[in-house]
Amino acid sequence: MKRIALVPGTFDPITIGHVDIIDRALPMFDELWIGIGRNSIKQSLFPEEKRREWIENIYGSNKKIKVEAYEGLTTDFCHKIGALFIIRGIRTTADFDYEKNIAQMNKAQYPDIESIFLMCNPAYTAISSTIVRDIIRNGGDASQFIPSQIKL
Amino acid sequence: MKRIALVPGTFDPITIGHVDIIDRALPMFDELWIGIGRNSIKQSLFPEEKRREWIENIYGSNKKIKVEAYEGLTTDFCHKIGALFIIRGIRTTADFDYEKNIAQMNKAQYPDIESIFLMCNPAYTAISSTIVRDIIRNGGDASQFIPSQIKL
Amino acid sequence: MKRIALVPGTFDPITIGHVDIIDRALPMFDELWIGIGRNSIKQSLFPEEKRREWIENIYGSNKKIKVEAYEGLTTDFCHKIGALFIIRGIRTTADFDYEKNIAQMNKAQYPDIESIFLMCNPAYTAISSTIVRDIIRNGGDASQFIPSQIKL
Amino acid sequence: MKRIALVPGTFDPITIGHVDIIDRALPMFDELWIGIGRNSIKQSLFPEEKRREWIENIYGSNKKIKVEAYEGLTTDFCHKIGALFIIRGIRTTADFDYEKNIAQMNKAQYPDIESIFLMCNPAYTAISSTIVRDIIRNGGDASQFIPSQIKL
Amino acid sequence: MKRIALVPGTFDPITIGHVDIIDRALPMFDELWIGIGRNSIKQSLFPEEKRREWIENIYGSNKKIKVEAYEGLTTDFCHKIGALFIIRGIRTTADFDYEKNIAQMNKAQYPDIESIFLMCNPAYTAISSTIVRDIIRNGGDASQFIPSQIKL
Amino acid sequence: MKRIALVPGTFDPITIGHVDIIDRALPMFDELWIGIGRNSIKQSLFPEEKRREWIENIYGSNKKIKVEAYEGLTTDFCHKIGALFIIRGIRTTADFDYEKNIAQMNKAQYPDIESIFLMCNPAYTAISSTIVRDIIRNGGDASQFIPSQIKL
Repeated sequence: MKRIALVPGTFDPITIGHVDIIDRALPMFDELWIGIGRNSIKQSLFPEEKRREWIENIYGSNKKIKVEAYEGLTTDFCHKIGALFIIRGIRTTADFDYEKNIAQMNKAQYPDIESIFLMCNPAYTAISSTIVRDIIRNGGDASQFIPSQIKL
Repeated sequence: MKRIALVPGTFDPITIGHVDIIDRALPMFDELWIGIGRNSIKQSLFPEEKRREWIENIYGSNKKIKVEAYEGLTTDFCHKIGALFIIRGIRTTADFDYEKNIAQMNKAQYPDIESIFLMCNPAYTAISSTIVRDIIRNGGDASQFIPSQIKL
Repeated sequence: MKRIALVPGTFDPITIGHVDIIDRALPMFDELWIGIGRNSIKQSLFPEEKRREWIENIYGSNKKIKVEAYEGLTTDFCHKIGALFIIRGIRTTADFDYEKNIAQMNKAQYPDIESIFLMCNPAYTAISSTIVRDIIRNGGDASQFIPSQIKL
Repeated sequence: MKRIALVPGTFDPITIGHVDIIDRALPMFDELWIGIGRNSIKQSLFPEEKRREWIENIYGSNKKIKVEAYEGLTTDFCHKIGALFIIRGIRTTADFDYEKNIAQMNKAQYPDIESIFLMCNPAYTAISSTIVRDIIRNGGDASQFIPSQIKL
Repeated sequence: MKRIALVPGTFDPITIGHVDIIDRALPMFDELWIGIGRNSIKQSLFPEEKRREWIENIYGSNKKIKVEAYEGLTTDFCHKIGALFIIRGIRTTADFDYEKNIAQMNKAQYPDIESIFLMCNPAYTAISSTIVRDIIRNGGDASQFIPSQIKL
Repeated sequence: MKRIALVPGTFDPITIGHVDIIDRALPMFDELWIGIGRNSIKQSLFPEEKRREWIENIYGSNKKIKVEAYEGLTTDFCHKIGALFIIRGIRTTADFDYEKNIAQMNKAQYPDIESIFLMCNPAYTAISSTIVRDIIRNGGDASQFIPSQIKL
């Protein structure tokens, strides 16, 4: 049976932290989906098409990787694509607290889906899309925190 | 003297986690108020009448329990109902950080009121109204996280 | 029915932080036991008789308070003295993590016993018997951290 | 060379916690700027002029202190005023997680600027502008948490 | 290529928390080693043979699982058995802090080995071998926290 | 007046994390002492002479830096050398909790001494003398975590 995993996120924008987690998760699975979650409440800084295009620029040539946007529950999207594993990176204890609750609630609802966590590369610990957006909004240079393949 | 306590919250909606804390706090007090805090800034998912009705369905027959909505400071509501104790459940370190600050600020202002904390039942650690609302908004089934007496 | 609570600890030595928690817990209960836990593994700095004597100097005249040393599980001691409540103060997230586990394990074994937590007075947050002992061992002056009734 | 530091914040309003950090940072530097950050997203409770006036009332006579509002990145403002040090107080682990990320991102972009942290006075640990605003909005009395020089 | 993982631990004794993590990790891998780490500094409560026997009683019939004791670095043992993945469960923020450091140090030394984390089943969050040993040492009944197949 | 600071530690052994903190603290002060604390309870892995020699190899030519071992309270050593500032690096929330308590207790006893914290370089977050010792004890190669000037 194929082992299929989902890396969900908003990727607004994708950072070198995301790329590190995706690259490290790849050897564990036969197929890896990068799912761009649509959030009806929070407004994104970059349009969905742009965020998707950036990811495809980075991973487009990799046959194991698929990119798709989705709305609704992440677990429902997992079922749709046949993924039994959700991959998340953890950077800080605040991340941990948040991710733990989500993972445990998902598991309570869908015991067949397992959430799997990787520890962030320490050098990338502080990099979050939130801070990257903040730098961009204030006219700063965030290029060292995003993959070299994308131009903001 | 009667020992009166308040369990404040938004209860949007009430979860099995809330019920667990209320049930465990009951033996400690002679009278227990469930106070539905009105928040002028955050919009609730369920109307106040609905939230109150659900709580009354669960606890209506219990003579020790009273249910009431309030606005303004929780400590002012305590004084109004004669409660010297505020009950809160804690689930995570994020909860702890938040609750500690509120409790210490309340104590600084009203030294006669004591905030008392119970540790969440571990099986309910991940359940929060926030995640329950998120599941409902995305069309998921949150019924296992809310008391059986209420129908969403 | 009398509401009986236990404040367990090593009290090596009792600090103004302990006294604050005990004083604040008193109004909630009809009887409050201060239980000096004997720890077969960790060596105490002060002998048990001394630690007990200090507590009795502080609370000896209070009819609601009883002081006793115990060995074995804290929950077993609760059953012996008829206490359904264990009182603990929390200072930091490290405390929280530790206390949560103990409380939840106790609850799993003895559902009739409830652990109740008070947030430390912020001014006393940093005071622990561990640091007090460290100051004493290094010849420092720890008098501001211990109750005025006791002379080290 | 003059050692110049910046204490950035929203100061909405300035609290006794801020004052404590500023007073303790003063001996370390030859010049200390209090920078009122303009946030285009979050609406402040008090107008910028008011917040600035309060700070000037408190520190106006101190020759080492300068007060100025700024927009954009804090690090850019540092360069503008010649400050190589950013001062921040930390109160809780939530603060720590947040501040660590900001400091490390700033350092990655501007290695010449160092962020320096002081531990909050324990008595002021729970005091945040957020809770102070909440008290004020709900008609409570927050005067014990703000410097005596200012009248809300 | 076979995906081989190691679940390292002291298993002093194995708890239902360990079993939950092992059972959930199984579908991800083709071969799963349970490695009993020998610790030259900390004395175990139960002898190594006993701890190994318990694990074999539980998993002996499972062809995918192998049990072996090892000394030295966990990463060296990984190389010896051909495991590219280390599996760990996380229960609390204290766990998280500890595990993050170990995982990041291992990754720095052996970039080919990935540490993978599962969030503890919330119902088992408080269960640790440390507390289980403490209950046993104090004559308490820890049977609900250990797998039914083993008799202490 | 000269600004003198102390960087206290056990330095068993000194790591690239320590060196990073010391290097970043240097511009803030006129004189920086590296104090090797003697701990009567915990046995060090490397003898004091060796640890001191390593530090002197690294910083020996720097006129602003002095190296000395001390026993007793760190604050007493500060007074002896005229240091009004204690420098510490923070890596994790566990560090934060620990350092906060020590700093606040020191401040309560000696209000003239200020503890100052720098956030660890993210790339060095996981590096601690404890883990480095563990690697060395188990025959691993820890050379990438210690300064190139020293040979273990």
